[in-house]
Amino acid sequence: MSHNPKAVVLLSGGLDSATTLAIARNEGFECYALSFRYGQRHRLETDAAAQIARQLGAAQHRITDIDLRQFGGSALTGDIEVPKDRPAGQISRGIPITYVPARNTIFLSFALAWAEVLGSSDIFIGVNAIDYSGYPDCRPEYIEAYERMANLATRAAVEGRLHLNIHTPLIRLTKAQIIQRGLQLGVDYSLTRSCYDPDSEGRACGRCDSCRLRLKGFAEAGRNDPAPYQATAYSWRCWS
Amino acid sequence: MSHNPKAVVLLSGGLDSATTLAIARNEGFECYALSFRYGQRHRLETDAAAQIARQLGAAQHRITDIDLRQFGGSALTGDIEVPKDRPAGQISRGIPITYVPARNTIFLSFALAWAEVLGSSDIFIGVNAIDYSGYPDCRPEYIEAYERMANLATRAAVEGRLHLNIHTPLIRLTKAQIIQRGLQLGVDYSLTRSCYDPDSEGRACGRCDSCRLRLKGFAEAGRNDPAPYQATAYSWRCWS
Repeated sequence: MSHNPKAVVLLSGGLDSATTLAIARNEGFECYALSFRYGQRHRLETDAAAQIARQLGAAQHRITDIDLRQFGGSALTGDIEVPKDRPAGQISRGIPITYVPARNTIFLSFALAWAEVLGSSDIFIGVNAIDYSGYPDCRPEYIEAYERMANLATRAAVEGRLHLNIHTPLIRLTKAQIIQRGLQLGVDYSLTRSCYDPDSEGRACGRCDSCRLRLKGFAEAGRNDPAPYQATAYSWRCWS
Repeated sequence: MSHNPKAVVLLSGGLDSATTLAIARNEGFECYALSFRYGQRHRLETDAAAQIARQLGAAQHRITDIDLRQFGGSALTGDIEVPKDRPAGQISRGIPITYVPARNTIFLSFALAWAEVLGSSDIFIGVNAIDYSGYPDCRPEYIEAYERMANLATRAAVEGRLHLNIHTPLIRLTKAQIIQRGLQLGVDYSLTRSCYDPDSEGRACGRCDSCRLRLKGFAEAGRNDPAPYQATAYSWRCWS
């Protein structure tokens, strides 16, 4: 019988979190994958997360409902239009309206609760500070401050039984490097969903910031993206 | 027309958070009260919170559903028996099983999201480090670490528009001092509910740690607790 350490892995159904789960598994963790239905436009994300958790051998997968819509303030929770076709230079400049207030803080807080109950001292989150969309809660200084707070927050930490580590294995990787690492570890990227505004069948638009960063990553990695796109989607060749 | 600054106030329906709301109002804030249904045994708490929000003139009151039960690990979410009749000396020693993993971290994270959307830089939470139950997420060092993290987490903070302050007006007060302050500010304590294990009509047991701390506070303040107790409840005279 193996007694691998347990880790809670935040799993959105996107490319980054799928790769993060594969990395956590490869590091020997028994993985407890955690997803959220948070009133986003695309519930397809959580279906994708369930398939990815299965494909990558998570020990458990939980989907928690939280209502971020009632607080409003983001294109991803439905009250503002998702921007399209923004030039490359604009994507990393400033914080876009797809930013969801305090999202990673809320997600990490649920992960912290589950980790404490599991007796786990490890949380994995697929944040990335290179090819990212300028979200403040994806930066290393934010993650460090969260980890410090978390180690003052829980019974397990205060009683000295567990020192919580927040793992961010993608934080310094380019999108192309993330894709290359995931392919080495057997991630099936056809299951992953990144688009902020997919159609009703889950096909990506190819034009939102998330699609454009993803397509650029596949192009730079020299691979085709196996995920489904709408017929009108820009291909990676349109990246400028 | 007044343009008072907005504050998000965490409101549980208990004595401490009601007093905190009264203090925030007295400091001139327009108050947005936030409560949670988190699978606790006593949904009466959120009914109490709604009445308190009305009595104390909150501008809005929202009740958010979150499922902490699915993570387990606490007497307050239903999987362990609530301890009764513990000697005074034991209550402040160690962290009891009524501790809910990462509860304040989760609550503050939702408050942070709402504050950002409201354009508010102020969150009030009624934590207390004197007559408290030994919860790690009620200590000043935890709150300071949370505030530091929060100021790295949000778009509003990172863009320099808001510096978030977490107000803990009760943190250094005894329970008796909290009650005296609340009475000065017109809090109707008959509406507040503190018991971890009330009966079906919402009457307090008088025997759990929370009841005992509350009754001790009223006794030291020289007042009777106007909240309803079960016939078998210990009175404050039994405090030892």
